[in-house]
Amino acid sequence: MTATPSPRVFAVILAGGSGTRFWPLSRSQYPKQVLRLLGSDSMLQATIERLLPRIPPDRITVVTNASQAYIIRLDLYQKGWEQVQLLLEPFGRNTAMAVGLAAVRVPGLTDEDVLAVFPADHFIREQEKFLEALDTGAIWARAGYLVTFGISPTRPDTGYGYIKRGEPLDGQGSAFKTARFFEKPPLAQAEAYILEGDCYWNSGIFMFTRKAVLEAFARHLPEVSAILEELRQEALSLKEVYSQVPSISLDHGIMERAAQVAVVPVDMGWSDVGTWSALLDLFPKDDQGNVALGRTLNLDSRDCLIFAQERLVATVGLQGTVVVDTPDATLVCPMSRVQEVKNLVAELSRHWMVETEWPLTVERPWGRYTVMESGPGYKVKRIMVDPGKRLSLQLHHQRAEHWVVVQGTALATIGREVRRVATNESVFVPLNTAHRLENPGPAPLAIIEVQTGPYLEEDDIVRLDDDFWRLTEEPESKIP
Amino acid sequence: MTATPSPRVFAVILAGGSGTRFWPLSRSQYPKQVLRLLGSDSMLQATIERLLPRIPPDRITVVTNASQAYIIRLDLYQKGWEQVQLLLEPFGRNTAMAVGLAAVRVPGLTDEDVLAVFPADHFIREQEKFLEALDTGAIWARAGYLVTFGISPTRPDTGYGYIKRGEPLDGQGSAFKTARFFEKPPLAQAEAYILEGDCYWNSGIFMFTRKAVLEAFARHLPEVSAILEELRQEALSLKEVYSQVPSISLDHGIMERAAQVAVVPVDMGWSDVGTWSALLDLFPKDDQGNVALGRTLNLDSRDCLIFAQERLVATVGLQGTVVVDTPDATLVCPMSRVQEVKNLVAELSRHWMVETEWPLTVERPWGRYTVMESGPGYKVKRIMVDPGKRLSLQLHHQRAEHWVVVQGTALATIGREVRRVATNESVFVPLNTAHRLENPGPAPLAIIEVQTGPYLEEDDIVRLDDDFWRLTEEPESKIP
Repeated sequence: MTATPSPRVFAVILAGGSGTRFWPLSRSQYPKQVLRLLGSDSMLQATIERLLPRIPPDRITVVTNASQAYIIRLDLYQKGWEQVQLLLEPFGRNTAMAVGLAAVRVPGLTDEDVLAVFPADHFIREQEKFLEALDTGAIWARAGYLVTFGISPTRPDTGYGYIKRGEPLDGQGSAFKTARFFEKPPLAQAEAYILEGDCYWNSGIFMFTRKAVLEAFARHLPEVSAILEELRQEALSLKEVYSQVPSISLDHGIMERAAQVAVVPVDMGWSDVGTWSALLDLFPKDDQGNVALGRTLNLDSRDCLIFAQERLVATVGLQGTVVVDTPDATLVCPMSRVQEVKNLVAELSRHWMVETEWPLTVERPWGRYTVMESGPGYKVKRIMVDPGKRLSLQLHHQRAEHWVVVQGTALATIGREVRRVATNESVFVPLNTAHRLENPGPAPLAIIEVQTGPYLEEDDIVRLDDDFWRLTEEPESKIP
Repeated sequence: MTATPSPRVFAVILAGGSGTRFWPLSRSQYPKQVLRLLGSDSMLQATIERLLPRIPPDRITVVTNASQAYIIRLDLYQKGWEQVQLLLEPFGRNTAMAVGLAAVRVPGLTDEDVLAVFPADHFIREQEKFLEALDTGAIWARAGYLVTFGISPTRPDTGYGYIKRGEPLDGQGSAFKTARFFEKPPLAQAEAYILEGDCYWNSGIFMFTRKAVLEAFARHLPEVSAILEELRQEALSLKEVYSQVPSISLDHGIMERAAQVAVVPVDMGWSDVGTWSALLDLFPKDDQGNVALGRTLNLDSRDCLIFAQERLVATVGLQGTVVVDTPDATLVCPMSRVQEVKNLVAELSRHWMVETEWPLTVERPWGRYTVMESGPGYKVKRIMVDPGKRLSLQLHHQRAEHWVVVQGTALATIGREVRRVATNESVFVPLNTAHRLENPGPAPLAIIEVQTGPYLEEDDIVRLDDDFWRLTEEPESKIP
């Protein structure tokens, strides 16, 4: 008989968001969770960094949509977190199924181990308070509770769910039984919750043992539970079962219905960074109440969020307006209507406007490229290769490429020839010729690539060798 | 004794505007008068086209600032109007001096010839009515009047000067003596002028004989008159005298003071296209009252001017706002504050923001180029060469160039070699090597040029031969 390992905490990070609310910075293929909105780390990276003092990378699982596997895997790769597990849903079925899937498919999980569930895209200013709350939550999770984490409301926000606490679980007020969950309330109700003093915002963070959550599934979502049991016992493909899964959140499906639910209050500088207006609270303001990032000049504008990237953004006399300027799309919207940006993105998609899909700068494991211009029969890209990295060995059936090195030195493989190409030198890559671009130097390599040919999309690529994970048949591998 | 030619009408077009109100579309080196705001012709080109049924190109003179000579000359060249005269002021001294200069320096002008003065940047919808008014104006100018043209006000605009008419000059009401000029009035006063029914907006168009206007200068602006006399008699350089010239408008300096002034009323669909908001009246509106040009999607936005160029501009719930998006700068401003765009541009200049100077796409007599990217030690341009045209034979001391042909076929001179470069071929231009790019074909030629070197500004150019006018030592010739 082998010894049962002692109960451990495993993190499950829900990273399946579609990223429409931060358009035009977020795109369907570059969702909010991988944006570097609040520093040099992406939201997902910051979420994982925050956990590392308690939970090692090999006990962290990220659940996401298969269509976002590439960008999520890249986000983890950039931090060297290759031990972090990825669970790919064929399509999103809301949080109940995402958590249930983790409960039955995270390798090495025992019934007594604790699952801690985190959204991938929230901001938490005070990490120590966060970690203390996790420690408290783990105690009550091990005691059999489904644990939620409650944020003391600072305003009558109608966009959050609220949790009313019941009797305390200990003498220090560090945890309570929950009395009730409330849906996103009308304003008057939200104001009342604040006055009552015993209501919290539902942070979307949860902890429970696998045993407890699977029992709750069995009791409150038997249909989902049956599917989870199948997935647990058999090596079923997710595609086969996912279409039968009801789309329901963990809150509605489980937490609101379960008996033994606890809330751990925690004030940790939390924000769900839900819309553009949230950034107004997270960045320092100028004297006129503006948050102005990038190259901008604002003449007598007040209470605005001005977000510039490559271009100059200038405003005169604007009040309470969001301006977000990206290399291929600009958004202008009153602060009071930022919730509708998701409707706008839906409308843009309906009109086949491709600016909802990819940003012009696309991250790659070897660096990044930027589409500078697409013209008839040609495309111009800037390609930045990180020191020591190389692209896949590849060929194209429909396009030739001219590379001009403008920074650093490249090692270029063209057919059977390998040669060094210095700054201010160029090289030609004919059609149907295996080629590879490498940066052998210690500094970044920049090349300007001019592609010519009748078809210039990213899926005209045959990969012959790769240093990364892109030789598999996943659809996202069709990317250089 | 030679016969005196019969009196003729000469046009003087005032094209010295600095173009700050239409920023970011207008720049100091690409002012409003050369913008194609309202069709395929620039404002200046449209101004001249409008005159051609009455005044041939060799009787048209454009007065502008020396710093704008290049762009104005190019604007005329694009229409094949090489007979149009250019009078270059060393710097602007307002309209009195500009008109006085034309009166003494337009070649072949006699005292009896009529000068017709036009702003270069106004819009006139009904050309026939305009021409009829000119015919009427010429009659009264020949009779010795200083003639103004009055527009019936359609709203109590506080941005225009008003002219009150006096007794009629003929029985048909086609011309009146002027009773009084009014400065830009307060709103209540402007409303009163409309009710009075005998007030007009001052259109800034004038007609008079040379004799009459020079006499008026002598009487009302003797200081300017003395300088004009010097300029008339002697081959003085303008620089020598211009610093002594007072800056005063023709309206204030002459028209308001002179005795024999007439006004010709004309309703010809006139607009001075003074600010961005003027475009709201000149373009068709959508159902929500928006004028939306370019690739834009506007969700529940109303009464906005949305001007997109290369990028997608998307708005949600905007009211009465101007959004102008250009390749290197974006403006957002409430419609009610578009007058302040000129202050904004002053502020941008004060902060050395170069987006006030040149647009990214620069017109040339052989076509145009667009700066796609400026990086450390390199610059990428798209160069479009019109059929049959060629750039100057030139060399650079500080940069090498890579050309990749992406459309058409080039004839490239590199040192002593001349060769054809087809689509998808490239050529290298080393430092200090004479080179020339030519489009020998019947279709446009497009090349992507990657420049590398320590200094990449436009003034690193030595012109050895040119098909155009750019071998002179004018400062603006330092442009490829």
